Amino acid sequence: MNQLSGQHLINGQWTGEPEAGFSSFDPERNEPLPWQFCEANTEQLEAAVGAAESAFLAYRLWPAERRAELLDAMADAIDALGETLTHVATQETALPEARLNGERGRTCGQLRLFAQLLREPRQPAIIDLAQPDRQPLPKPDIRLDQLPLGPVAVFGASNFPLAFSAVGGDTASALAAGCPVVVKGHPAHPATTELVARAMLSAIEKVGAPKGVFNLLQGRSPQLSQELVRAPEIQAVGFTGSFKVGQLLSRIAANRPQPIPFFGELGSINPQLLLPQKLAESAEALAEQQHGSMMMGQGQFCTSPGLVMMLRGEGSDRYLSRLTSLIEQQAPGTMLTPGIANAYREAAHKLVSSDGVHLAAQGLPCTHANQSQALIASCSGDTLLANPELLEEVFGPCTLVVTFDHARQLLEAIRTLPGQLTGSVHGTEQEMCNERTLMVELAYRVGRLIANQMPTGVEVCHAMQHGGPWPAATHSQSTSVGAEAIKRFTRPMAWQNLPQSLLPQHLCDQSTTPQLRY
Amino acid sequence: MNQLSGQHLINGQWTGEPEAGFSSFDPERNEPLPWQFCEANTEQLEAAVGAAESAFLAYRLWPAERRAELLDAMADAIDALGETLTHVATQETALPEARLNGERGRTCGQLRLFAQLLREPRQPAIIDLAQPDRQPLPKPDIRLDQLPLGPVAVFGASNFPLAFSAVGGDTASALAAGCPVVVKGHPAHPATTELVARAMLSAIEKVGAPKGVFNLLQGRSPQLSQELVRAPEIQAVGFTGSFKVGQLLSRIAANRPQPIPFFGELGSINPQLLLPQKLAESAEALAEQQHGSMMMGQGQFCTSPGLVMMLRGEGSDRYLSRLTSLIEQQAPGTMLTPGIANAYREAAHKLVSSDGVHLAAQGLPCTHANQSQALIASCSGDTLLANPELLEEVFGPCTLVVTFDHARQLLEAIRTLPGQLTGSVHGTEQEMCNERTLMVELAYRVGRLIANQMPTGVEVCHAMQHGGPWPAATHSQSTSVGAEAIKRFTRPMAWQNLPQSLLPQHLCDQSTTPQLRY
Repeated sequence: MNQLSGQHLINGQWTGEPEAGFSSFDPERNEPLPWQFCEANTEQLEAAVGAAESAFLAYRLWPAERRAELLDAMADAIDALGETLTHVATQETALPEARLNGERGRTCGQLRLFAQLLREPRQPAIIDLAQPDRQPLPKPDIRLDQLPLGPVAVFGASNFPLAFSAVGGDTASALAAGCPVVVKGHPAHPATTELVARAMLSAIEKVGAPKGVFNLLQGRSPQLSQELVRAPEIQAVGFTGSFKVGQLLSRIAANRPQPIPFFGELGSINPQLLLPQKLAESAEALAEQQHGSMMMGQGQFCTSPGLVMMLRGEGSDRYLSRLTSLIEQQAPGTMLTPGIANAYREAAHKLVSSDGVHLAAQGLPCTHANQSQALIASCSGDTLLANPELLEEVFGPCTLVVTFDHARQLLEAIRTLPGQLTGSVHGTEQEMCNERTLMVELAYRVGRLIANQMPTGVEVCHAMQHGGPWPAATHSQSTSVGAEAIKRFTRPMAWQNLPQSLLPQHLCDQSTTPQLRY
Repeated sequence: MNQLSGQHLINGQWTGEPEAGFSSFDPERNEPLPWQFCEANTEQLEAAVGAAESAFLAYRLWPAERRAELLDAMADAIDALGETLTHVATQETALPEARLNGERGRTCGQLRLFAQLLREPRQPAIIDLAQPDRQPLPKPDIRLDQLPLGPVAVFGASNFPLAFSAVGGDTASALAAGCPVVVKGHPAHPATTELVARAMLSAIEKVGAPKGVFNLLQGRSPQLSQELVRAPEIQAVGFTGSFKVGQLLSRIAANRPQPIPFFGELGSINPQLLLPQKLAESAEALAEQQHGSMMMGQGQFCTSPGLVMMLRGEGSDRYLSRLTSLIEQQAPGTMLTPGIANAYREAAHKLVSSDGVHLAAQGLPCTHANQSQALIASCSGDTLLANPELLEEVFGPCTLVVTFDHARQLLEAIRTLPGQLTGSVHGTEQEMCNERTLMVELAYRVGRLIANQMPTGVEVCHAMQHGGPWPAATHSQSTSVGAEAIKRFTRPMAWQNLPQSLLPQHLCDQSTTPQLRY
């Protein structure tokens, strides 16, 4: 891996002294990897945000077609990293190669989706035509545009080294919107991050984009993250991570002299609601789906289903029996970092030590460092209602199964749920219609309501909403995945009474962009 | 005016003891009006937000057609207040009747625009159709919905007693979105507010809407405002007012345990950029337009043009000469409140006392209490660049005219502008094309860029953007006027894999709503 420098990427230049920094780490072997990385200092941070601001002045003028060319070139360059990328990422994260290849496909798909939309917008522009003869006052010509906000800070996420890290949903949507990016790489996979950044730079050079449209700072210190959010040049933040860190940085963004939007996706327990008839018909299949979904990425998905809610009955016994038998045979798996492995053990221990909570099943014991043992806890609806702290996320392969005695209790429990990224209802069409109140209550607590499917696997598409009411996200009115994510990084601006020669092409009378005209 | 109770409207009931509260005030006669109003206490605040939350559970299920019916009924009821409303409002605000009738027309227009859009949506819904055979994984059916956020707090604005007060842009868009409202009435026009609230209640009763969809709290204490923003039931805030109060309340909203969006429109100096050729051709006409616009509502418009920027030349002399002669004949006018009149005098005095700033013209002297004297200050481009505090808003009939010696200075000045609601460029088509850099720089600092028109008069239409980069607004990504304002109070939610019978009508396959399908 002699192509790794361990440096930051600032305005197209690799800079910094890796000797003074930190090592990459292999959680599976529980030992450092042979790569050293820089810890960014204030001067480097200022250089990076300054480069992004300078690049903004040029990049904001780029027509959609050129931005699309850049995004496509980036996707091609990331694809061209080939097996090297997967090989490095699997060492740093202990995630399997198939999963990593899937993530890379998502990110390249997101880049290409935005490129396609920039070339052929599908959502119409909004135009009010002038009515010079209107009484009592003439109506002016007004055309609504979307302008990029400016430099965006993106925080790499430990659990999505390729889909939400140096280049993922946030970086893709910021660049598509016309905003340069300063990435704070996640210290759990700095080599992966550097490889991706090298691909980004090659795409930037190929297309002739301003060098500062993509900058990378490596580092581990919380001060670096906070300074980046405080930097006056930064105009918005994209973040995927823990509630604790997300809430902290979000408050910093809100309390700057100039507050800026902070788009944080903070996690979720993704409740699974099993309705009785469906449960009676398919208890075993539902348990198998739950097992498959909760074990994806060793439970380290923001959409991991950590809570199952059902009514007591013959189906509920069969479900729990099948789920526990699957978990009891479940091999342990390595977590992303030693810190995450420790936090999982503590949170799981706390959960099963809670009054009224039972350890229903454990996976096979851990044999190596940094592993986690899968776990099913169970409790009654009464216990859950009396102990809302049981709804806190346990990040890892753990599910709390709650059995309710009465439908009324179940409804009450749904009403106490904090905001969630997703919620699933498993039921026959008839019983979902009968339980419409449950469906509505759940819909108002989630960003995505799913019928008869598991929440893991977030489709990159036009109608996707990945986010949700607080505390699942800091900003419930936006998504971090899908075509709508571009709206995070633009703001509306109206052109009034401009001659055609001065309007942006997509708002002109002869535009090929779809337009709503009034 | 025996129909005025002076009470709060909580869940359809008039409650409170006005004796312990405050009086309405006539700024023109400088004496109290014979109406007493309640000061809301914590218990009443809790009752109001509780009523809004209860109403939300029912109102969020109302189909678009019924919401439209409610909005239309509200507009009709406000219209039906007839001259009584204008008569009361003019006593409380000293605004002329024609202006107040215009404001009422705006608000009723906004209510009816949303009613029309609810009945016949023009913007397409976004739908990803399932692809069950897609490899390697099937694609699920995903349909993007918009859900109302919940109860919204709306703060009445002193300067728009009918267009941005108890019922104006914020209340109309919240109700259209499906959100009940708790209004904190502005203490400068409580009788006007009560009359409008009475109309709202009659519409609610006529249509059979939940009583708590519209609640009114009267009061003067800053604590009441802060408590309202802190109330856990409140899920978003609409505010129009001063930077100081808006920034304070915005930070409270951001620092709640659950942060909520705060949509504040905080004011602006609305720069007017006069390009040389246009100025040479039309100096006198431009000065007359400036005079008319800056005197609208005695300068108490958020879009009042408080800054003129031009290059020194023959046109600039003629412009200043015509503008000063108009101002010197300008009669004084009564301000909205004694406090606003005092603040204007102080701010205007501070401006003309600044080093390098000259008093170019004053209007006729004040003859009564609470009046303001119109004022033109002038300075050089050098002075402006050296003293950025000259860009602070002077709320009232005051304009600073800045003459630049070089185009380079002018560009530099535009780059130092804080965020603005609007900016106008007055130029020939040819010179605007030549000065495209100036246009772009200005566009990135405003919510609405206007060619050859004055900024006062905000059209209620589809493409309107009324807002702008901070500090013009706390939330640059939304508008407080026009059809897009409904988006402030909704959040996206994706339905995945739902049978047709369970989808909302507007997302069904046979929907009559325009849909983008992928």
